Amino acid sequence: MQVIKYPSREAWPEILKRPQQDLGELRRKVQQIIENVRTQGDSTLIDFARHYDKVELDSVLVGIDEWKAADEIPLKLRDAIETARKNILQFHKGQKPVEIMVETTPGVWCWRKALPIQKVGLYIPGGTAPLLSTFLMLAVPAQIAGCSQIVVCTPPNKEGKVDPAILYIAKQLGITQVFKAGGAQAIAAMAYGTETIPAVYKIFGPGNRYVTMAKQVVSMDGVAIDLPAGPSEVLIIADGNARPEFVASDLLSQAEHGMDSQVMLVLTDETLIDPVQKALEEQLQKLPRSRTAQAALEHSRIILVNNVEEAMELSNAYAPEHLILMTENAGVLAEKVQNAGSVFIGPWSPESAGDYASGTNHTLPTNGYAFSYSGVSVESFMKVTSFQRISPTGIKNLGSTIMELAAAEGLEAHRMAVQVRLSALKEKTEGNETNG
Amino acid sequence: MQVIKYPSREAWPEILKRPQQDLGELRRKVQQIIENVRTQGDSTLIDFARHYDKVELDSVLVGIDEWKAADEIPLKLRDAIETARKNILQFHKGQKPVEIMVETTPGVWCWRKALPIQKVGLYIPGGTAPLLSTFLMLAVPAQIAGCSQIVVCTPPNKEGKVDPAILYIAKQLGITQVFKAGGAQAIAAMAYGTETIPAVYKIFGPGNRYVTMAKQVVSMDGVAIDLPAGPSEVLIIADGNARPEFVASDLLSQAEHGMDSQVMLVLTDETLIDPVQKALEEQLQKLPRSRTAQAALEHSRIILVNNVEEAMELSNAYAPEHLILMTENAGVLAEKVQNAGSVFIGPWSPESAGDYASGTNHTLPTNGYAFSYSGVSVESFMKVTSFQRISPTGIKNLGSTIMELAAAEGLEAHRMAVQVRLSALKEKTEGNETNG
Repeated sequence: MQVIKYPSREAWPEILKRPQQDLGELRRKVQQIIENVRTQGDSTLIDFARHYDKVELDSVLVGIDEWKAADEIPLKLRDAIETARKNILQFHKGQKPVEIMVETTPGVWCWRKALPIQKVGLYIPGGTAPLLSTFLMLAVPAQIAGCSQIVVCTPPNKEGKVDPAILYIAKQLGITQVFKAGGAQAIAAMAYGTETIPAVYKIFGPGNRYVTMAKQVVSMDGVAIDLPAGPSEVLIIADGNARPEFVASDLLSQAEHGMDSQVMLVLTDETLIDPVQKALEEQLQKLPRSRTAQAALEHSRIILVNNVEEAMELSNAYAPEHLILMTENAGVLAEKVQNAGSVFIGPWSPESAGDYASGTNHTLPTNGYAFSYSGVSVESFMKVTSFQRISPTGIKNLGSTIMELAAAEGLEAHRMAVQVRLSALKEKTEGNETNG
Repeated sequence: MQVIKYPSREAWPEILKRPQQDLGELRRKVQQIIENVRTQGDSTLIDFARHYDKVELDSVLVGIDEWKAADEIPLKLRDAIETARKNILQFHKGQKPVEIMVETTPGVWCWRKALPIQKVGLYIPGGTAPLLSTFLMLAVPAQIAGCSQIVVCTPPNKEGKVDPAILYIAKQLGITQVFKAGGAQAIAAMAYGTETIPAVYKIFGPGNRYVTMAKQVVSMDGVAIDLPAGPSEVLIIADGNARPEFVASDLLSQAEHGMDSQVMLVLTDETLIDPVQKALEEQLQKLPRSRTAQAALEHSRIILVNNVEEAMELSNAYAPEHLILMTENAGVLAEKVQNAGSVFIGPWSPESAGDYASGTNHTLPTNGYAFSYSGVSVESFMKVTSFQRISPTGIKNLGSTIMELAAAEGLEAHRMAVQVRLSALKEKTEGNETNG
C-alpha cells in the first residue's frame, strides 16, 4: 500500500480520486447483447450460456432435480442462512413507511402511502461462488415491501445447474421464478421479458462490468435500478488503540473482492503503519484469492493525518461505501459521519458482519455515490403515492391562493379549474339561500 | 379527443401506449453543450444566454437591483406564496425519517440515520413565466432535509433579469446562491461547477427537452437527479355523478402544459361523453394557451369502460402521474390505487390544488415511472446511512454464521476477519482465567 503522510488539504482531491474507466466500448457491446435478447428472447440466453458459461441448456427453467438437490445442503449452512435471514428480517421489517394524514388547511387533507413495486427482478451473481447473501439481502426486503412478483436470474454453474443453496433459499422464501441466466443478457431479459422470463419494473443486484453496464443501459429506457455501480470500497479510520491484525483483516476483506477494489486506511498514529503492513503480508499468504487482494492493495493507500477529526473530514470528502471506525470513542466519532454507505463502529464490528448476518443491507452506494444515494432498504422496493381530498370548505379556503399562483405562472386552465368549482359552490349557496 | 368504447383487455396496451421519441440527435447536441460548459465555464453560459435567451449578461450573478426589485412584488402574490409555503412545509416536515435501533442478536446493534445531501441544485424553468411553485416545491423540502448548500439556476427573462417573484421566494427562504443560467448549460454548470456556480451532488427540477436530456446525461456521470422525465399527464376516472365542466377544466389544466401532454379520461357512463366534449370546447376558447391545449387534446383519449373497478385496473396498468377520481365513493376507490404519482379524490380536489398549494409535492413520476418511482419528498434530499456496533458477546454470537456464509461464498478474508477477532477474545478469556 502506498503511504501518504500528513497531506495538505489541497492534496486531498488527488488522494481521494477513484480510478476512471472509459466505458464506451463496453457500452456498445452490452447494447448489442440487449438488442439480441429483445429480438430473439430465450434462444439468445441459451446461446450466451453456451458461449460464456460453457454449458448446454435445454431451457432457462430450473429442473425438478435441481429443486430437489436444494434439500440436501449441509445443516450448518442451513443454520447460517436461517440466522442471517432472521436478522435481516428483523432489521428491515421496521422500514416500511407509515401513513400520516395532515390537514394542511381546514378542509384540505393530504397523505402519502407507500405501495410495493409490483414486479421486481433480482440478479444473483454466480461466477466462482454463488452469492447467497445477496439473495437474502434483496429477497427479504422485497417480501416485506409486498412485491407481488419476484423474478430471479442467476447464471448456471459448470454443470448447467443453479447452485443448490440458492434454490434452498428460494424454497424457504417461497420464490419460484428462478431462471438460469447470467450477465448482461439476464438484465435484458428482466427488463424486456422473453418467452419464459417476465419483464419487471425494477432490477436489483450486483454483477460484473457487463451486468452493471446493462443495468445502466436499461435504466435509460424506463426500467428502474437499485443503484449505479462501481468497485467495492472500504475506508478504515484507526488510532493507536487499533489492533493491526484486525485492521489488516478488514482491509483484505475488501481487497479480495476484486482487483479494482478501493481500500483506504486513515491513521492518526504513525507507529501503526509497520505492524499493519506486516499483518497484511502474513494474512495475504493464507488467502486463496491472494493475487486479487494483492493487486487491489497495490493501488490502495495508507494516509497519516493529525487526529481523528481530520480523519473523519477526509472520510466525509471521500464518501466510502463501507467505513470502519477503530478508534477510542468510536461511537462519538460516528456522530460526525456525513457521507458513507454503512458504518462499522469499534473493534468487534468487522465489515463481514454487515456483509452477511448482522441484519443491515449490504447493497450500498459505492464510487462516491454515498454523497447522494442510500443503500437498498424496504423503501427501495416501494414507491410512494400522495393523496389529497379537499372538501367544499377546503377549496373555498385555498382557492384564491391557487388562482393567484396559477395566474403568476400564466397557466389559465389551472386557474379556471378552481374558478369553475368556486362558481358551482356559489350557485349552490345562492340556491340554498333562495330555497331557505 | 379520441373516443374508445368498451375496449377488450387485449387492446389495453395499445390504448395506454405513450408516444416514443428518438432522442439520439438531442443527446448529441446536449453532450456538446455539456462539454462546452465543462471546458469553458461561465463564458459558455454567457454565450448561450446571448444565443438562446437573446440577452447580454455581464455575469451569471444576480445584481443588487434585481434583489431589491424582489421586495416590490404585489401583496396578493406574497400572500399566495406564503400560504403555499406554509402548506408545503406542514405536509413535508413530517417526512424526515426517524432512527430506530434494533438489537438483531444479543450484542449486535444496528440502526439507520438519514443525512442531508450536502449540496443540491434546483433548476427553476423560466420561459414564458417563472415557475414559482416549482421553487417552493423543491426548496422547502431541501431546507427541511438540512441540505447545507442550495444552488439555484434559472434562465434570465428578456431584460436579462431573474423574475422578482423568484428572488422574493429566495429571500424569504434565505437562499442566496441564485444564478442566471437556463437550459442544458445550467444543468452542466451545477453538475461540474464553473468559476461562479458550485458543483452539487444532486440536481432537481423540471425543464424542456434539453434540460431533461442534460439531467439524464450527467446522471450517467455520477450526479444524482430527482426523477427521469417525460411529458406531464393526467388520468381522470369519472362516473355519471361527475360534473362535465369540472372534468373538462382538469383535462385542460394538463393539456395546457404542452403539446406532448398526455390526457386520459376513463368514463363509466356514456352520457358524459358529449357534455364533456362540449365543456372542453367552451373552456378552450377562454385559454391564452388554447393552441397548445388543443394540440394535446388531439392525441388524448376518452375511454368508456363497464364500471369503476375496471377503470381503476386500466389506470393501474397506465400508472398516471396525476390521477383524479370523480366518482361516488371516490375515497373507497382510492384504496385500490396501485400505480400513480398523486391522487386527487372527489370533485373538489382539482389537480391544480396539488400543483400549487395543498401541500403535496408536484414533482412526480410521469411517463410510466410511477410503476417504480416516488415523487419528490424530503427523503429525496437525504440519503440513509446504516450503522452497526457489535460487542465481544455479539461477535461471539454471530461469528459462526458469518464464517459459514463467507466460506460458502469462497471469501476467505471475510471469514478471517471474524476468526482473528474470535481468537483474540479467546486469548483474552484464557489470559483472564490464568490471571484469575
